[in-house]
Amino acid sequence: MFLPALMGQGYHERHALYPVNPKMSEVQGLRCYPSVLDCPDPVDHVICQIPRVSVSELVDQCVEKGVRSIHFFTAGFSESRDDEMAAVEREIVLKARAGGVRLLGPNCMGLYSPADQLTFMPGFPREPGAVFMLSQSGSNAGDIVHGLAARGVRFSKGVSYGNGADLRAHDFLDYAAWDPETQIVVAYIEGVRDGRRFFAALRRCAEHKPTIVLKGGHTAAGARAADSHTASLAGSIEVFDAVCRQAGAMRAATMAELHDLVIALTTGLREVRGRGVALIGIGGGFAVLSSDAIAEAGLDVPPLPKAVQEQLREFLPVAGTSVRNPVDASLERGADRDRSHRAYAAIARSEPIDVMFTALGFGWGPSGGLGPGMGSMGGFRPSGGSDRDADDPALRAREQVDELAELQRETGVPFALIQRGQAGADQQLQLHAHARRLAAFPDVERASAAVACLLDWRARRAGLPELF
Amino acid sequence: MFLPALMGQGYHERHALYPVNPKMSEVQGLRCYPSVLDCPDPVDHVICQIPRVSVSELVDQCVEKGVRSIHFFTAGFSESRDDEMAAVEREIVLKARAGGVRLLGPNCMGLYSPADQLTFMPGFPREPGAVFMLSQSGSNAGDIVHGLAARGVRFSKGVSYGNGADLRAHDFLDYAAWDPETQIVVAYIEGVRDGRRFFAALRRCAEHKPTIVLKGGHTAAGARAADSHTASLAGSIEVFDAVCRQAGAMRAATMAELHDLVIALTTGLREVRGRGVALIGIGGGFAVLSSDAIAEAGLDVPPLPKAVQEQLREFLPVAGTSVRNPVDASLERGADRDRSHRAYAAIARSEPIDVMFTALGFGWGPSGGLGPGMGSMGGFRPSGGSDRDADDPALRAREQVDELAELQRETGVPFALIQRGQAGADQQLQLHAHARRLAAFPDVERASAAVACLLDWRARRAGLPELF
Repeated sequence: MFLPALMGQGYHERHALYPVNPKMSEVQGLRCYPSVLDCPDPVDHVICQIPRVSVSELVDQCVEKGVRSIHFFTAGFSESRDDEMAAVEREIVLKARAGGVRLLGPNCMGLYSPADQLTFMPGFPREPGAVFMLSQSGSNAGDIVHGLAARGVRFSKGVSYGNGADLRAHDFLDYAAWDPETQIVVAYIEGVRDGRRFFAALRRCAEHKPTIVLKGGHTAAGARAADSHTASLAGSIEVFDAVCRQAGAMRAATMAELHDLVIALTTGLREVRGRGVALIGIGGGFAVLSSDAIAEAGLDVPPLPKAVQEQLREFLPVAGTSVRNPVDASLERGADRDRSHRAYAAIARSEPIDVMFTALGFGWGPSGGLGPGMGSMGGFRPSGGSDRDADDPALRAREQVDELAELQRETGVPFALIQRGQAGADQQLQLHAHARRLAAFPDVERASAAVACLLDWRARRAGLPELF
Repeated sequence: MFLPALMGQGYHERHALYPVNPKMSEVQGLRCYPSVLDCPDPVDHVICQIPRVSVSELVDQCVEKGVRSIHFFTAGFSESRDDEMAAVEREIVLKARAGGVRLLGPNCMGLYSPADQLTFMPGFPREPGAVFMLSQSGSNAGDIVHGLAARGVRFSKGVSYGNGADLRAHDFLDYAAWDPETQIVVAYIEGVRDGRRFFAALRRCAEHKPTIVLKGGHTAAGARAADSHTASLAGSIEVFDAVCRQAGAMRAATMAELHDLVIALTTGLREVRGRGVALIGIGGGFAVLSSDAIAEAGLDVPPLPKAVQEQLREFLPVAGTSVRNPVDASLERGADRDRSHRAYAAIARSEPIDVMFTALGFGWGPSGGLGPGMGSMGGFRPSGGSDRDADDPALRAREQVDELAELQRETGVPFALIQRGQAGADQQLQLHAHARRLAAFPDVERASAAVACLLDWRARRAGLPELF
């Protein structure tokens, strides 16, 4: 029995919980009942982890008890390529529906509802948020929630629905579209059994809430794996992509892109309106590779207007320091703080710039004067007795984030923070940034892909409501 | 003055070090001299960080003193678009060459030689290794060394050479080709001033040592940035790519790919001979997305032969557990250890399999029986009182790595470990894996790209010596 993992510790303080096992009288301090029918009160939801050969009898008991839903953790049905067990799967769906019971699964992890302290993996956040997650895969549901939680995102509800024998993608999309606690929807889908209903539900959902779909099994190798996994017949990715486009949804190409799109949608970056990127304080050679990556994603690093370059030249008087874009500047503190703030704001507000890319967790140090690109290598710069070196780098990095958040608010131009090196990978700093509506990405490639995907999505939504 | 950063702390225990500054008599406990000419002994190498207007006089003094090389940390020459300073750059090169002095830079970080305790950034490893690094960019030199050091790689020598006014890529490639301490060469290059010499040197180097080139400035935006950075005229990437192919070198598309190729070349993965990937113990939905990523990189996840599937079925009797490939198994300990070891070895040795992908830092837990993919989610699996859960997960993960290293050695089939979730990101575990010649990658996409690049490189080397 796995009560602690399936339920948050606060669950049975709010809701009654009844372990059922004919061989036990107590489970972790809770009274255990021989069958669902023996539970003393009405039962809303049953989590089934009994052997597959006994599930049919359980469904009968649940119908008799008036249970509203059953989550079949139990696996080994249609996905096992065993005709007999595939028939059992069909039979329990018919029996449950006839009896007014809805099913999750089989072969799935079930429900995550932080407000109810109901969860299915250790490490899922207990605080609710605004992102709804549906996933055919339990392990990918885990990657969605764990991966995004580590970057500061919280969830309204989540569901892992495995084979989707009864309730499936379109049901959950309809729920998410209606759910007042949900603002953003993410879905991991391997196969769609009912294309028309899926498309209609996706359109209803994506019309009013940003909706991201990650499709598993879009290659021959992936489709074979999906068949073994959830008995899904994966269709052509071109068709699926067209469906997403027509519905006004975003299609994420990878799990990482799904994460990055949610980060973009839950920060100021969602306001991005064009392809002009300013690269600031990111180091000479790194700026070259970053410019390449940005251009390859279909964005641009346009030269700044002459007037802005002249303003920057006052701020960065050292010969050899680039002010065209990329700009070899860094945020200053103390006496220089106002001047550096004005320089950043001037870049953000200049005509060709739509979004500012800068490094997270690096350098407040003085720019130029010492040699190549030192201003942008604060974390690595030679330490030689400056007073500033005595400062706490973590505190400096948090101050940098606060300053960038203020610039984003003040100028209305979004920032994307690039996590470079070990300082940039500091998770507390990422969370600090996300809490201030600043998007942070592991590298320029991923930041650029997220921005490009967001812009393409917005362009395709002509005729649909503008969501922000 | 930045002695601690420019020199490892052991440097002046092995070599004499002479600070030069007319305004000081002592620097950090070392006697300071008014000029190079006043140093009491012969001087081999000078690190110049004086203002650019004074460099010409310094070169005169170095010629007179019989110095062999000068590293110009000083910037603001041809890369500043100032005609006068570009002329100074040309003049000092001519003067130095005529006087028998070779120059590094200007606008660069200089030399890294761990055996001499000579370095240019804090955090560079002090222990020598077999990788030679040349980079036009100081910050990218830092990303190469720091990024690879964190994954267990060590360096023979490194050089950041900025504008490359005198010594440049072909000189360093020739040095690396000859250097007995160097086995692998990595280069970050923005522009090549002398195409024929570069190509000839690249061919000489790549013929006998695996050589990886990352080219900065291969888009219009990147080329503009490279022009500001090192005054490099970046050429067409198609031409550059053709040069690399003809020379038998590898071209990395990104910094991450450069890192990953070095990881592949410094582990058992360099032996990979074909495109057949076995995906093991990686979780149902994750296996679907991984299969897609592998296929998109041009590799395959072929079904295992029936005989091997039957052998696995004995080991994994639970219905619904995939044995075709992806295989939903995990390494076992204790009584089941031999059986799981034999199952892994059977997969590795089966005809369609050339390389084994498995998760790093996850589960020794029992497979199947509980529900969907639990065997492959050890790190997240519901904890419910099993004795094993009392074990130290870090120790279990190290044991898993040791077991995989033994399988790699025994079967001759290489493994790629995928760092999934927070357990997988554990840096100590990565280092443990690399020390055992196991390649570890942040995700399946990067592992697949590295394998595909290695295979393409090998295929193109027809006629050149087989290096391993």
